[in-house]
Amino acid sequence: MAFSPLVDQLITALRCLPGVGPKSAQRMALHLLERNREGGFRLSQILDQALEQVGQCQSCRTLTEEPICGLCRSERRDNSLLCVVETPADQIAMEQAGGFNGRYFVLTGHLSPIDGIGPDSLGLPLLAERLSQGVVQELILATNPTVEGEATAHYIADMIEHLPIKVTRLAHGIPIGGELEYIDGGTLSRALAGRLPMV
Amino acid sequence: MAFSPLVDQLITALRCLPGVGPKSAQRMALHLLERNREGGFRLSQILDQALEQVGQCQSCRTLTEEPICGLCRSERRDNSLLCVVETPADQIAMEQAGGFNGRYFVLTGHLSPIDGIGPDSLGLPLLAERLSQGVVQELILATNPTVEGEATAHYIADMIEHLPIKVTRLAHGIPIGGELEYIDGGTLSRALAGRLPMV
Repeated sequence: MAFSPLVDQLITALRCLPGVGPKSAQRMALHLLERNREGGFRLSQILDQALEQVGQCQSCRTLTEEPICGLCRSERRDNSLLCVVETPADQIAMEQAGGFNGRYFVLTGHLSPIDGIGPDSLGLPLLAERLSQGVVQELILATNPTVEGEATAHYIADMIEHLPIKVTRLAHGIPIGGELEYIDGGTLSRALAGRLPMV
Repeated sequence: MAFSPLVDQLITALRCLPGVGPKSAQRMALHLLERNREGGFRLSQILDQALEQVGQCQSCRTLTEEPICGLCRSERRDNSLLCVVETPADQIAMEQAGGFNGRYFVLTGHLSPIDGIGPDSLGLPLLAERLSQGVVQELILATNPTVEGEATAHYIADMIEHLPIKVTRLAHGIPIGGELEYIDGGTLSRALAGRLPMV
């Protein structure tokens, strides 16, 4: 025996959320039904509305319900700096870290031929067009330090080799507050290779 | 800077789910928007439908979209045994454990005067009426072994003292597979007090 059909369907539907297994899904369904119907209704409505309306910014490809996102419309950002990130979450992480005042371009993924994700899926033609306009002076490739992220960064660097644009990559090294003893060898050797004079 | 207003609202709405903090909610929202819009639409629809239609079984108070739940309608259960549990999840746990073939009564909580949860909120008048019909021979009080659960069990036992019904409580003791060394003193002393002759 299990729950009634509709409750079971709700538990199954909740499992589309990342990190939610059968036990959490059951807990969520019962919580909403027993204790927070109002919150559940609001979630159902907002979810429907967001899925209906949120698309990609025509300029930077981040998630937004407007044609052009707030950051691309802002007049206080430096147009000569463009930072390429893999996802909207990476963009937010960069913004929250502070220290960057340029524009963004969101790939929404990385090159992965095996999954059919090529340059077009990442909006690289749009990026190339934007870079060819001569406004951007420096392109920061902030893709993840994974094999796919590196490959994507190299692909983009090759793609714009003929343009007079400085291409940079985020520095690798020891995280702030990290202890040498517990840092992996790869990171440590990159930190050594990239050592800087002490001021 | 943060996400666009609608994406932010979705992240906030997802936090009504139990165990979901700001980071998980962001991950869920981006996952649905970027990779699983279909699953998100289905979730939104089923959630709305379940909140609209699921109510309490008129007989046992468990969650169901029908007037009387499947278990109460079943003709293969023993009417003389009634098991009182706190929540629908407890009922499912009892069913999955096996070994019980009677009916259930779901309190949907425990007595908690400080939160305004009294006998009426737990459906105790309905329970008393059902027990006074003379069909139930044994009432198993399977509320949780917490202060509130015990208090609720005692209240119910007192309420039906005048009826010729055997009232029982789930046994306390060592969990199967547990090791004496790691079991708390309270459980161990209950297990000792409730020791049984070896057959």
